[in-house]
Amino acid sequence: SRPTSKYWGKNRLLEGRMADPWQDCMDYAVTLARQAGEEVREALKDEKNVMLKSSPVDLVTATDQKIEKMLISAIKEKFPSHSFIGEESVAAGEKSILTDNPTWIIDPIDGTTNFVHRFPFVAVSIGFTVNKKVEFGVVYSCVEDKMYTAKKGKGAFCNGQKLQVSKQEDITKSLVVTELGSTRTPDIVKATVSNMEKLFCVPVHGLRGVGTAALNMCLVATGGADAYFEMGIHCWDIAGASVIVTEAGGVLLDVTGGPFDLMSRRVVAANNRTLAEQIIKEIEIVPFQRDDEE
Amino acid sequence: SRPTSKYWGKNRLLEGRMADPWQDCMDYAVTLARQAGEEVREALKDEKNVMLKSSPVDLVTATDQKIEKMLISAIKEKFPSHSFIGEESVAAGEKSILTDNPTWIIDPIDGTTNFVHRFPFVAVSIGFTVNKKVEFGVVYSCVEDKMYTAKKGKGAFCNGQKLQVSKQEDITKSLVVTELGSTRTPDIVKATVSNMEKLFCVPVHGLRGVGTAALNMCLVATGGADAYFEMGIHCWDIAGASVIVTEAGGVLLDVTGGPFDLMSRRVVAANNRTLAEQIIKEIEIVPFQRDDEE
Repeated sequence: SRPTSKYWGKNRLLEGRMADPWQDCMDYAVTLARQAGEEVREALKDEKNVMLKSSPVDLVTATDQKIEKMLISAIKEKFPSHSFIGEESVAAGEKSILTDNPTWIIDPIDGTTNFVHRFPFVAVSIGFTVNKKVEFGVVYSCVEDKMYTAKKGKGAFCNGQKLQVSKQEDITKSLVVTELGSTRTPDIVKATVSNMEKLFCVPVHGLRGVGTAALNMCLVATGGADAYFEMGIHCWDIAGASVIVTEAGGVLLDVTGGPFDLMSRRVVAANNRTLAEQIIKEIEIVPFQRDDEE
Repeated sequence: SRPTSKYWGKNRLLEGRMADPWQDCMDYAVTLARQAGEEVREALKDEKNVMLKSSPVDLVTATDQKIEKMLISAIKEKFPSHSFIGEESVAAGEKSILTDNPTWIIDPIDGTTNFVHRFPFVAVSIGFTVNKKVEFGVVYSCVEDKMYTAKKGKGAFCNGQKLQVSKQEDITKSLVVTELGSTRTPDIVKATVSNMEKLFCVPVHGLRGVGTAALNMCLVATGGADAYFEMGIHCWDIAGASVIVTEAGGVLLDVTGGPFDLMSRRVVAANNRTLAEQIIKEIEIVPFQRDDEE
Protein backbone atom coordinates (compact mmCIF):
# COMPACT_ATOMS: atom_id res chain seq x y z
CA SER A 1 0.00 0.00 0.00
CA ARG A 2 1.15 3.42 -0.83
CA PRO A 3 2.12 5.56 2.14
CA THR A 4 0.52 8.95 2.72
CA SER A 5 2.39 11.78 1.10
CA LYS A 6 3.73 12.82 4.51
CA TYR A 7 5.41 9.46 5.14
CA TRP A 8 6.46 9.20 1.52
CA GLY A 9 8.25 12.48 1.98
CA LYS A 10 9.92 11.24 5.15
CA ASN A 11 11.01 8.03 3.47
CA ARG A 12 12.45 9.97 0.58
CA LEU A 13 14.41 12.06 3.04
CA LEU A 14 15.70 8.97 4.82
CA GLU A 15 16.57 7.37 1.51
CA GLY A 16 18.46 10.49 0.58
CA ARG A 17 20.46 10.28 3.79
CA MET A 18 21.18 6.61 3.25
CA ALA A 19 22.31 7.27 -0.30
CA ASP A 20 24.50 10.15 0.88
CA PRO A 21 25.81 8.82 4.16
CA TRP A 22 28.78 11.18 4.21
CA GLN A 23 27.00 14.40 3.26
CA ASP A 24 27.34 15.82 6.79
CA CYS A 25 31.07 15.19 6.70
CA MET A 26 31.39 16.85 3.32
CA ASP A 27 29.40 19.93 4.35
CA TYR A 28 31.64 20.22 7.37
CA ALA A 29 34.77 19.81 5.24
CA VAL A 30 33.68 22.71 3.03
CA THR A 31 33.07 24.94 6.05
CA LEU A 32 36.41 24.03 7.57
CA ALA A 33 38.34 24.43 4.32
CA ARG A 34 36.94 27.92 3.94
CA GLN A 35 37.91 28.80 7.52
CA ALA A 36 41.38 27.38 6.98
CA GLY A 37 41.65 29.37 3.75
CA GLU A 38 40.89 32.55 5.64
CA GLU A 39 43.76 31.74 8.01
CA VAL A 40 46.04 31.20 5.01
CA ARG A 41 45.00 34.53 3.50
CA GLU A 42 45.59 36.27 6.84
CA ALA A 43 49.05 34.73 7.07
CA LEU A 44 49.78 35.92 3.52
CA LYS A 45 48.65 39.44 4.42
CA ASP A 46 51.21 39.71 7.22
CA GLU A 47 53.81 42.30 6.49
CA LYS A 48 56.45 41.07 4.08
CA ASN A 49 58.87 41.94 6.90
CA VAL A 50 57.62 39.01 8.94
CA MET A 51 58.59 36.75 6.08
CA LEU A 52 61.98 38.40 5.82
CA LYS A 53 62.82 38.58 9.51
CA SER A 54 61.75 35.14 10.60
CA SER A 55 62.79 32.31 8.36
CA PRO A 56 60.10 31.79 5.73
CA VAL A 57 60.43 28.07 6.33
CA ASP A 58 59.61 28.53 10.02
CA LEU A 59 56.65 30.68 9.16
CA VAL A 60 55.19 28.18 6.75
CA THR A 61 55.67 25.36 9.24
CA ALA A 62 53.93 27.34 11.97
CA THR A 63 50.97 28.18 9.73
CA ASP A 64 50.79 24.64 8.35
CA GLN A 65 50.79 23.11 11.81
CA LYS A 66 48.31 25.59 13.23
CA ILE A 67 45.82 24.99 10.41
CA GLU A 68 46.18 21.22 10.47
CA LYS A 69 45.61 21.16 14.25
CA MET A 70 42.58 23.42 13.86
CA LEU A 71 41.12 21.14 11.19
CA ILE A 72 41.78 17.86 12.98
CA SER A 73 40.52 19.02 16.37
CA ALA A 74 37.34 20.44 14.83
CA ILE A 75 36.69 17.18 12.97
CA LYS A 76 37.53 14.96 15.97
CA GLU A 77 34.98 16.82 18.06
CA LYS A 78 32.22 16.03 15.60
CA PHE A 79 33.40 12.63 14.38
CA PRO A 80 35.43 11.14 17.24
CA SER A 81 35.74 7.69 15.70
CA HIS A 82 37.30 8.85 12.43
CA SER A 83 40.97 8.51 11.47
CA PHE A 84 43.37 11.10 10.08
CA ILE A 85 46.35 11.33 7.80
CA GLY A 86 47.77 14.83 7.78
CA GLU A 87 50.96 16.17 6.26
CA GLU A 88 52.07 17.82 9.47
CA SER A 89 51.07 14.91 11.71
CA VAL A 90 53.12 12.57 9.53
CA ALA A 91 56.03 15.03 9.61
CA ALA A 92 55.71 14.89 13.41
CA GLY A 93 56.08 11.10 13.35
CA GLU A 94 52.56 9.71 12.93
CA LYS A 95 52.05 6.86 10.50
CA SER A 96 50.30 7.28 7.19
CA ILE A 97 48.60 3.93 6.85
CA LEU A 98 45.23 3.92 5.16
CA THR A 99 42.63 1.70 6.88
CA ASP A 100 38.96 0.91 6.15
CA ASN A 101 37.92 3.36 8.87
CA PRO A 102 36.51 6.70 7.68
CA THR A 103 39.70 8.73 7.20
CA TRP A 104 40.32 12.41 6.63
CA ILE A 105 43.43 13.00 4.51
CA ILE A 106 44.53 16.57 4.99
CA ASP A 107 47.01 18.96 3.47
CA PRO A 108 46.60 22.25 5.33
CA ILE A 109 48.67 24.15 2.72
CA ASP A 110 49.29 22.50 -0.61
CA GLY A 111 51.90 24.64 -2.36
CA THR A 112 54.06 25.55 0.62
CA THR A 113 56.81 26.99 -1.60
CA ASN A 114 54.19 29.17 -3.26
CA PHE A 115 52.95 30.18 0.19
CA VAL A 116 56.43 31.27 1.27
CA HIS A 117 56.82 33.35 -1.88
CA ARG A 118 53.19 34.52 -2.06
CA PHE A 119 52.96 32.98 -5.49
CA PRO A 120 49.19 33.08 -5.66
CA PHE A 121 48.34 29.35 -5.85
CA VAL A 122 47.89 27.81 -2.44
CA ALA A 123 45.24 25.27 -1.50
CA VAL A 124 43.68 23.64 1.52
CA SER A 125 43.05 20.01 0.57
CA ILE A 126 40.76 17.53 2.30
CA GLY A 127 40.06 14.03 1.02
CA PHE A 128 37.77 11.62 2.84
CA THR A 129 38.07 7.85 2.44
CA VAL A 130 35.92 4.93 3.58
CA ASN A 131 37.14 1.38 2.95
CA LYS A 132 40.21 3.02 1.38
CA LYS A 133 38.13 4.68 -1.37
CA VAL A 134 37.81 8.46 -1.62
CA GLU A 135 34.16 9.40 -0.97
CA PHE A 136 34.53 13.15 -1.38
CA GLY A 137 37.16 15.80 -1.88
CA VAL A 138 37.38 19.49 -1.07
CA VAL A 139 40.15 21.72 -2.44
CA TYR A 140 40.02 25.41 -1.59
CA SER A 141 42.26 27.73 -3.62
CA CYS A 142 42.77 30.40 -0.99
CA VAL A 143 44.04 33.37 -3.01
CA GLU A 144 41.76 32.82 -5.99
CA ASP A 145 38.83 32.12 -3.61
CA LYS A 146 37.82 29.03 -5.59
CA MET A 147 36.13 26.18 -3.75
CA TYR A 148 36.45 22.90 -5.64
CA THR A 149 34.26 20.04 -4.37
CA ALA A 150 33.23 16.57 -5.50
CA LYS A 151 31.34 13.69 -3.99
CA LYS A 152 31.43 10.19 -5.48
CA GLY A 153 28.62 9.88 -8.02
CA LYS A 154 27.46 13.48 -7.62
CA GLY A 155 29.70 15.47 -9.95
CA ALA A 156 32.46 18.00 -9.39
CA PHE A 157 32.00 21.72 -8.86
CA CYS A 158 33.94 24.96 -8.54
CA ASN A 159 32.10 27.66 -6.63
CA GLY A 160 28.90 25.79 -7.45
CA GLN A 161 29.58 25.53 -11.18
CA LYS A 162 29.69 22.00 -12.61
CA LEU A 163 33.09 20.94 -13.91
CA GLN A 164 33.81 18.93 -17.02
CA VAL A 165 37.18 17.71 -18.28
CA SER A 166 38.27 18.48 -21.85
CA LYS A 167 37.58 16.08 -24.72
CA GLN A 168 41.07 16.13 -26.24
CA GLU A 169 42.28 12.62 -27.11
CA ASP A 170 45.39 13.55 -29.09
CA ILE A 171 48.54 13.99 -27.03
CA THR A 172 50.06 16.27 -29.70
CA LYS A 173 47.24 18.75 -29.09
CA SER A 174 47.23 18.48 -25.31
CA LEU A 175 48.23 20.83 -22.52
CA VAL A 176 49.83 18.91 -19.66
CA VAL A 177 50.48 20.07 -16.10
CA THR A 178 53.30 18.65 -14.02
CA GLU A 179 56.03 19.78 -11.63
CA LEU A 180 59.74 19.39 -11.15
CA GLY A 181 58.90 18.44 -7.55
CA SER A 182 60.78 19.15 -4.37
CA THR A 183 63.45 16.43 -4.45
CA ARG A 184 66.93 17.53 -5.52
CA THR A 185 68.50 14.04 -5.69
CA PRO A 186 70.38 14.26 -9.01
CA ASP A 187 69.10 10.97 -10.48
CA ILE A 188 65.51 11.83 -9.65
CA VAL A 189 65.82 15.36 -11.08
CA LYS A 190 67.39 13.90 -14.25
CA ALA A 191 64.55 11.44 -14.73
CA THR A 192 61.90 14.08 -13.99
CA VAL A 193 63.43 16.58 -16.40
CA SER A 194 63.87 13.88 -19.03
CA ASN A 195 60.16 13.00 -18.77
CA MET A 196 59.25 16.64 -19.30
CA GLU A 197 61.59 16.92 -22.27
CA LYS A 198 60.21 13.74 -23.85
CA LEU A 199 56.62 14.93 -23.52
CA PHE A 200 57.51 18.39 -24.77
CA CYS A 201 59.06 16.84 -27.89
CA VAL A 202 56.18 14.45 -28.66
CA PRO A 203 55.22 17.35 -29.02
CA VAL A 204 52.47 18.37 -26.61
CA HIS A 205 51.02 21.88 -26.98
CA GLY A 206 52.70 22.88 -23.75
CA LEU A 207 53.69 22.04 -20.20
CA ARG A 208 52.49 24.11 -17.26
CA GLY A 209 52.61 23.93 -13.49
CA VAL A 210 51.24 26.29 -10.86
CA GLY A 211 53.18 24.68 -8.02
CA THR A 212 50.51 22.67 -6.24
CA ALA A 213 49.39 19.14 -7.10
CA ALA A 214 45.86 19.79 -5.85
CA LEU A 215 45.33 22.85 -8.05
CA ASN A 216 47.07 21.27 -11.04
CA MET A 217 44.55 18.43 -10.77
CA CYS A 218 41.65 20.86 -10.36
CA LEU A 219 42.81 22.57 -13.58
CA VAL A 220 42.39 19.20 -15.31
CA ALA A 221 38.89 18.93 -13.82
CA THR A 222 37.97 22.35 -15.27
CA GLY A 223 39.22 21.34 -18.72
CA GLY A 224 41.87 24.11 -18.60
CA ALA A 225 44.55 21.44 -18.78
CA ASP A 226 44.11 18.03 -20.38
CA ALA A 227 46.22 15.94 -18.03
CA TYR A 228 48.43 16.02 -14.97
CA PHE A 229 51.07 13.55 -13.91
CA GLU A 230 53.61 13.54 -11.14
CA MET A 231 55.76 11.17 -9.13
CA GLY A 232 56.89 11.97 -5.61
CA ILE A 233 53.70 13.60 -4.40
CA HIS A 234 51.99 12.36 -1.23
CA CYS A 235 48.48 11.07 -0.56
CA TRP A 236 47.50 14.34 1.13
CA ASP A 237 48.45 16.34 -1.98
CA ILE A 238 46.08 14.40 -4.23
CA ALA A 239 43.37 12.69 -2.14
CA GLY A 240 40.93 15.61 -2.28
CA ALA A 241 41.55 16.45 -5.92
CA SER A 242 41.47 12.81 -7.10
CA VAL A 243 37.69 12.54 -6.84
CA ILE A 244 37.29 16.06 -8.26
CA VAL A 245 39.01 14.83 -11.44
CA THR A 246 36.97 11.61 -11.72
CA GLU A 247 33.66 13.35 -10.96
CA ALA A 248 34.47 15.88 -13.68
CA GLY A 249 34.64 12.93 -16.05
CA GLY A 250 38.37 12.27 -15.88
CA VAL A 251 40.41 9.19 -15.06
CA LEU A 252 43.15 8.32 -12.58
CA LEU A 253 45.80 5.78 -13.46
CA ASP A 254 49.09 4.63 -12.07
CA VAL A 255 52.12 5.57 -14.18
CA THR A 256 52.43 1.86 -15.02
CA GLY A 257 49.02 2.01 -16.65
CA GLY A 258 47.56 -0.06 -13.80
CA PRO A 259 44.94 1.15 -11.32
CA PHE A 260 45.61 4.34 -9.36
CA ASP A 261 46.90 3.72 -5.84
CA LEU A 262 46.46 6.64 -3.43
CA MET A 263 49.49 5.63 -1.33
CA SER A 264 51.87 5.00 -4.24
CA ARG A 265 53.12 8.59 -4.53
CA ARG A 266 52.38 8.79 -8.23
CA VAL A 267 49.43 9.56 -10.44
CA VAL A 268 48.30 10.29 -13.95
CA ALA A 269 45.08 12.33 -13.76
CA ALA A 270 43.69 12.89 -17.23
CA ASN A 271 40.57 13.89 -19.07
CA ASN A 272 40.26 10.39 -20.55
CA ARG A 273 42.00 7.04 -20.72
CA THR A 274 43.15 7.51 -24.30
CA LEU A 275 45.23 10.56 -23.43
CA ALA A 276 46.41 9.06 -20.12
CA GLU A 277 47.78 6.01 -21.91
CA GLN A 278 49.64 8.11 -24.48
CA ILE A 279 51.32 10.03 -21.65
CA ILE A 280 52.15 6.82 -19.80
CA LYS A 281 53.87 5.48 -22.93
CA GLU A 282 56.22 8.49 -22.92
CA ILE A 283 57.26 8.68 -19.29
CA GLU A 284 59.77 6.67 -17.35
CA ILE A 285 58.95 5.61 -13.77
CA VAL A 286 60.82 7.53 -11.07
CA PRO A 287 61.00 5.46 -7.89
CA PHE A 288 59.75 6.81 -4.55
CA GLN A 289 59.07 5.04 -1.28
CA ARG A 290 55.31 4.54 -0.76
CA ASP A 291 53.46 6.66 1.77
CA ASP A 292 52.54 3.54 3.77
CA GLU A 293 56.01 2.02 3.78
CA GLU A 294 58.00 2.09 7.01
CA SER B 1 54.95 88.66 -9.89
CA ARG B 2 52.73 85.92 -8.69
CA PRO B 3 49.88 85.04 -11.03
CA THR B 4 46.29 85.04 -9.82
CA SER B 5 45.20 81.70 -8.51
CA LYS B 6 43.24 81.15 -11.69
CA TYR B 7 46.29 81.37 -13.91
CA TRP B 8 48.42 79.56 -11.40
CA GLY B 9 45.99 76.70 -11.61
CA LYS B 10 46.15 76.74 -15.36
CA ASN B 11 49.95 76.71 -15.35
CA ARG B 12 50.01 73.83 -12.90
CA LEU B 13 47.72 71.94 -15.20
CA LEU B 14 49.94 72.67 -18.18
CA GLU B 15 53.02 71.69 -16.22
CA GLY B 16 51.37 68.42 -15.28
CA ARG B 17 50.68 67.74 -18.93
CA MET B 18 54.24 68.57 -19.86
CA ALA B 19 55.60 66.29 -17.17
CA ASP B 20 53.26 63.49 -18.26
CA PRO B 21 53.19 63.98 -22.01
CA TRP B 22 51.92 60.47 -22.68
CA GLN B 23 49.21 60.30 -20.02
CA ASP B 24 46.41 60.52 -22.63
CA CYS B 25 47.94 57.62 -24.52
CA MET B 26 48.20 55.56 -21.38
CA ASP B 27 44.63 56.24 -20.29
CA TYR B 28 43.50 55.20 -23.74
CA ALA B 29 45.64 52.05 -23.60
CA VAL B 30 43.96 51.02 -20.35
CA THR B 31 40.48 51.56 -21.81
CA LEU B 32 41.36 49.61 -24.95
CA ALA B 33 43.06 46.76 -23.07
CA ARG B 34 39.92 46.32 -20.97
CA GLN B 35 37.72 46.29 -24.08
CA ALA B 36 40.05 43.80 -25.74
CA GLY B 37 39.96 41.67 -22.59
CA GLU B 38 36.18 41.56 -22.77
CA GLU B 39 36.47 40.26 -26.34
CA VAL B 40 38.90 37.60 -25.14
CA ARG B 41 36.55 36.55 -22.34
CA GLU B 42 33.64 36.39 -24.81
CA ALA B 43 35.70 34.20 -27.12
CA LEU B 44 36.54 31.93 -24.18
CA LYS B 45 32.85 31.67 -23.24
CA ASP B 46 31.90 30.29 -26.66
CA GLU B 47 30.72 26.73 -26.42
CA LYS B 48 33.58 24.26 -26.11
CA ASN B 49 32.10 22.75 -29.27
CA VAL B 50 33.24 25.71 -31.30
CA MET B 51 36.79 24.96 -30.17
CA LEU B 52 36.37 21.31 -31.05
CA LYS B 53 34.64 21.74 -34.40
CA SER B 54 36.76 24.46 -35.90
CA SER B 55 40.46 24.08 -35.46
CA PRO B 56 41.51 25.71 -32.18
CA VAL B 57 44.42 27.23 -34.06
CA ASP B 58 42.08 28.91 -36.53
CA LEU B 59 39.93 30.21 -33.70
CA VAL B 60 42.84 31.73 -31.87
CA THR B 61 44.17 33.33 -35.02
CA ALA B 62 40.78 34.83 -35.80
CA THR B 63 40.42 36.26 -32.29
CA ASP B 64 44.03 37.44 -32.23
CA GLN B 65 43.69 39.24 -35.55
CA LYS B 66 40.30 40.73 -34.72
CA ILE B 67 41.54 42.17 -31.43
CA GLU B 68 44.79 43.51 -32.87
CA LYS B 69 42.90 45.23 -35.71
CA MET B 70 40.44 46.70 -33.24
CA LEU B 71 43.26 48.04 -31.08
CA ILE B 72 45.35 49.46 -33.91
CA SER B 73 42.46 51.13 -35.72
CA ALA B 74 41.20 52.71 -32.48
CA ILE B 75 44.67 54.05 -31.69
CA LYS B 76 45.33 55.26 -35.27
CA GLU B 77 42.14 57.27 -35.16
CA LYS B 78 43.28 59.15 -32.09
CA PHE B 79 47.04 59.22 -32.73
CA PRO B 80 47.43 59.06 -36.52
CA SER B 81 51.18 59.81 -36.51
CA HIS B 82 52.12 56.93 -34.20
CA SER B 83 53.77 53.67 -35.25
CA PHE B 84 52.82 50.08 -34.43
CA ILE B 85 54.45 46.72 -33.92
CA GLY B 86 51.84 44.02 -33.45
CA GLU B 87 52.22 40.26 -33.30
CA GLU B 88 49.57 39.65 -35.93
CA SER B 89 50.73 42.47 -38.23
CA VAL B 90 54.25 41.03 -38.15
CA ALA B 91 52.86 37.55 -38.81
CA ALA B 92 51.09 39.11 -41.82
CA GLY B 93 54.40 40.40 -43.15
CA GLU B 94 54.89 43.83 -41.60
CA LYS B 95 58.32 44.71 -40.27
CA SER B 96 59.12 44.92 -36.59
CA ILE B 97 61.69 47.69 -36.58
CA LEU B 98 61.69 49.99 -33.59
CA THR B 99 62.12 53.70 -34.48
CA ASP B 100 62.22 56.88 -32.40
CA ASN B 101 58.61 57.60 -33.33
CA PRO B 102 56.00 56.98 -30.62
CA THR B 103 55.29 53.27 -31.09
CA TRP B 104 52.60 50.97 -29.74
CA ILE B 105 53.87 47.42 -29.30
CA ILE B 106 50.89 45.12 -29.06
CA ASP B 107 50.21 41.50 -28.26
CA PRO B 108 46.45 41.04 -28.53
CA ILE B 109 46.57 37.64 -26.76
CA ASP B 110 49.72 36.75 -24.86
CA GLY B 111 49.38 33.07 -23.99
CA THR B 112 47.73 31.79 -27.16
CA THR B 113 48.24 28.15 -26.19
CA ASN B 114 46.54 28.90 -22.87
CA PHE B 115 43.75 30.63 -24.77
CA VAL B 116 43.17 27.58 -26.97
CA HIS B 117 43.01 25.34 -23.91
CA ARG B 118 41.20 27.83 -21.66
CA PHE B 119 44.09 27.59 -19.23
CA PRO B 120 43.14 30.67 -17.26
CA PHE B 121 46.18 32.93 -17.91
CA VAL B 122 45.75 35.07 -20.99
CA ALA B 123 46.79 38.70 -21.31
CA VAL B 124 46.37 41.69 -23.56
CA SER B 125 49.73 43.46 -23.64
CA ILE B 126 50.44 47.01 -24.76
CA GLY B 127 53.83 48.69 -24.50
CA PHE B 128 54.45 52.24 -25.68
CA THR B 129 57.90 53.47 -26.70
CA VAL B 130 59.28 56.91 -27.54
CA ASN B 131 62.88 57.18 -28.74
CA LYS B 132 62.99 53.39 -28.41
CA LYS B 133 62.38 53.56 -24.64
CA VAL B 134 59.24 52.12 -23.05
CA GLU B 135 57.23 55.00 -21.55
CA PHE B 136 54.34 52.97 -20.18
CA GLY B 137 52.99 49.44 -20.17
CA VAL B 138 49.54 47.95 -19.77
CA VAL B 139 48.99 44.22 -19.25
CA TYR B 140 45.43 43.03 -18.70
CA SER B 141 45.00 39.49 -17.36
CA CYS B 142 41.62 38.75 -18.91
CA VAL B 143 40.38 35.75 -16.92
CA GLU B 144 41.70 36.97 -13.57
CA ASP B 145 40.43 40.50 -14.34
CA LYS B 146 43.73 42.02 -13.21
CA MET B 147 44.84 45.28 -14.85
CA TYR B 148 48.60 45.81 -14.49
CA THR B 149 49.87 49.28 -15.41
CA ALA B 150 53.08 51.26 -15.10
CA LYS B 151 54.32 54.59 -16.37
CA LYS B 152 58.00 55.53 -16.30
CA GLY B 153 58.77 57.21 -12.99
CA LYS B 154 55.26 56.79 -11.62
CA GLY B 155 55.24 53.28 -10.12
CA ALA B 156 53.52 50.05 -11.09
CA PHE B 157 50.01 49.02 -10.11
CA CYS B 158 47.62 46.10 -10.26
CA ASN B 159 43.96 47.10 -10.10
CA GLY B 160 45.13 50.34 -8.48
CA GLN B 161 47.29 48.67 -5.84
CA LYS B 162 50.97 49.61 -5.86
CA LEU B 163 53.34 46.79 -6.75
CA GLN B 164 56.69 46.05 -5.19
CA VAL B 165 59.16 43.33 -6.16
CA SER B 166 60.47 40.93 -3.52
CA LYS B 167 63.69 41.60 -1.60
CA GLN B 168 65.22 38.15 -2.01
CA GLU B 169 68.91 38.34 -2.98
CA ASP B 170 69.83 34.69 -2.55
CA ILE B 171 69.25 32.50 -5.59
CA THR B 172 68.96 29.39 -3.41
CA LYS B 173 65.88 30.90 -1.77
CA SER B 174 64.32 32.25 -4.94
CA LEU B 175 61.26 31.30 -6.94
CA VAL B 176 61.92 31.69 -10.66
CA VAL B 177 59.40 31.80 -13.50
CA THR B 178 60.33 30.68 -17.00
CA GLU B 179 58.89 28.67 -19.89
CA LEU B 180 59.93 25.85 -22.19
CA GLY B 181 58.79 28.12 -25.02
CA SER B 182 57.15 27.26 -28.29
CA THR B 183 60.13 26.12 -30.38
CA ARG B 184 60.58 22.38 -30.78
CA THR B 185 63.98 22.49 -32.51
CA PRO B 186 65.84 19.72 -30.62
CA ASP B 187 69.00 21.74 -29.86
CA ILE B 188 67.02 24.67 -28.55
CA VAL B 189 64.78 22.46 -26.41
CA LYS B 190 67.91 20.73 -25.04
CA ALA B 191 69.50 24.04 -24.09
CA THR B 192 66.27 25.39 -22.59
CA VAL B 193 65.68 22.25 -20.53
CA SER B 194 69.32 22.19 -19.46
CA ASN B 195 69.03 25.78 -18.18
CA MET B 196 65.97 24.82 -16.16
CA GLU B 197 67.72 21.76 -14.74
CA LYS B 198 70.81 23.77 -13.81
CA LEU B 199 68.78 26.41 -12.00
CA PHE B 200 66.66 23.78 -10.28
CA CYS B 201 69.82 22.13 -8.97
CA VAL B 202 71.52 25.33 -7.75
CA PRO B 203 69.00 24.81 -6.06
CA VAL B 204 66.31 27.44 -6.39
CA HIS B 205 63.16 27.06 -4.27
CA GLY B 206 61.21 26.27 -7.40
CA LEU B 207 60.48 26.93 -11.05
CA ARG B 208 57.04 28.00 -12.22
CA GLY B 209 55.43 29.19 -15.43
CA VAL B 210 51.85 30.17 -16.17
CA GLY B 211 52.35 30.13 -19.95
CA THR B 212 52.55 33.83 -20.76
CA ALA B 213 55.65 36.01 -20.67
CA ALA B 214 53.65 39.11 -19.80
CA LEU B 215 51.97 37.54 -16.77
CA ASN B 216 55.14 35.79 -15.65
CA MET B 217 56.80 39.22 -15.58
CA CYS B 218 53.83 40.76 -13.75
CA LEU B 219 54.21 38.03 -11.12
CA VAL B 220 57.77 39.25 -10.59
CA ALA B 221 56.41 42.80 -10.23
CA THR B 222 53.98 41.64 -7.50
CA GLY B 223 56.79 39.90 -5.59
CA GLY B 224 55.06 36.52 -6.06
CA ALA B 225 58.06 35.36 -8.07
CA ASP B 226 61.59 36.66 -7.64
CA ALA B 227 62.76 36.53 -11.23
CA TYR B 228 61.80 35.62 -14.77
CA PHE B 229 64.03 34.79 -17.69
CA GLU B 230 63.34 33.54 -21.16
CA MET B 231 64.92 33.38 -24.59
CA GLY B 232 62.86 33.21 -27.77
CA ILE B 233 60.11 35.60 -26.70
CA HIS B 234 59.24 38.61 -28.88
CA CYS B 235 59.16 42.33 -28.16
CA TRP B 236 55.33 42.31 -28.04
CA ASP B 237 55.37 39.65 -25.30
CA ILE B 238 57.48 41.74 -22.96
CA ALA B 239 57.26 45.45 -23.93
CA GLY B 240 54.26 46.22 -21.71
CA ALA B 241 55.44 44.15 -18.75
CA SER B 242 59.04 45.40 -18.92
CA VAL B 243 58.22 48.79 -17.41
CA ILE B 244 55.82 47.15 -14.93
CA VAL B 245 58.81 45.23 -13.55
CA THR B 246 61.15 48.22 -13.38
CA GLU B 247 58.49 50.51 -11.87
CA ALA B 248 57.84 47.86 -9.21
CA GLY B 249 61.53 48.22 -8.31
CA GLY B 250 62.92 45.42 -10.43
CA VAL B 251 65.63 45.27 -13.06
CA LEU B 252 65.87 44.15 -16.68
CA LEU B 253 69.08 42.69 -18.02
CA ASP B 254 70.19 40.86 -21.10
CA VAL B 255 71.14 37.23 -20.49
CA THR B 256 74.75 38.26 -21.16
CA GLY B 257 74.56 40.56 -18.14
CA GLY B 258 74.60 43.59 -20.44
CA PRO B 259 71.76 46.08 -20.83
CA PHE B 260 68.31 44.79 -21.75
CA ASP B 261 67.48 45.11 -25.45
CA LEU B 262 63.76 45.00 -26.27
CA MET B 263 64.36 43.56 -29.76
CA SER B 264 66.86 40.88 -28.71
CA ARG B 265 64.26 38.19 -27.93
CA ARG B 266 65.68 37.54 -24.48
CA VAL B 267 65.35 38.98 -21.02
CA VAL B 268 66.12 38.51 -17.37
CA ALA B 269 63.52 40.40 -15.35
CA ALA B 270 64.35 40.22 -11.67
CA ASN B 271 63.58 41.82 -8.34
CA ASN B 272 67.17 43.12 -8.12
CA ARG B 273 70.52 43.02 -9.87
CA THR B 274 72.10 40.68 -7.33
CA LEU B 275 69.62 37.91 -8.06
CA ALA B 276 69.60 38.63 -11.81
CA GLU B 277 73.37 38.20 -11.98
CA GLN B 278 73.28 34.91 -10.09
CA ILE B 279 70.73 33.59 -12.58
CA ILE B 280 72.77 34.85 -15.54
CA LYS B 281 75.80 32.96 -14.21
CA GLU B 282 73.85 29.69 -14.36
CA ILE B 283 72.22 29.91 -17.76
CA GLU B 284 73.60 29.27 -21.20
CA ILE B 285 72.60 31.55 -24.09
CA VAL B 286 70.17 30.03 -26.56
CA PRO B 287 70.46 31.80 -29.94
CA PHE B 288 67.41 33.35 -31.62
CA GLN B 289 67.19 35.75 -34.56
CA ARG B 290 66.45 39.29 -33.36
CA ASP B 291 62.99 40.75 -33.84
CA ASP B 292 64.44 43.51 -36.04
CA GLU B 293 66.60 41.24 -38.18
CA GLU B 294 65.46 40.59 -41.75
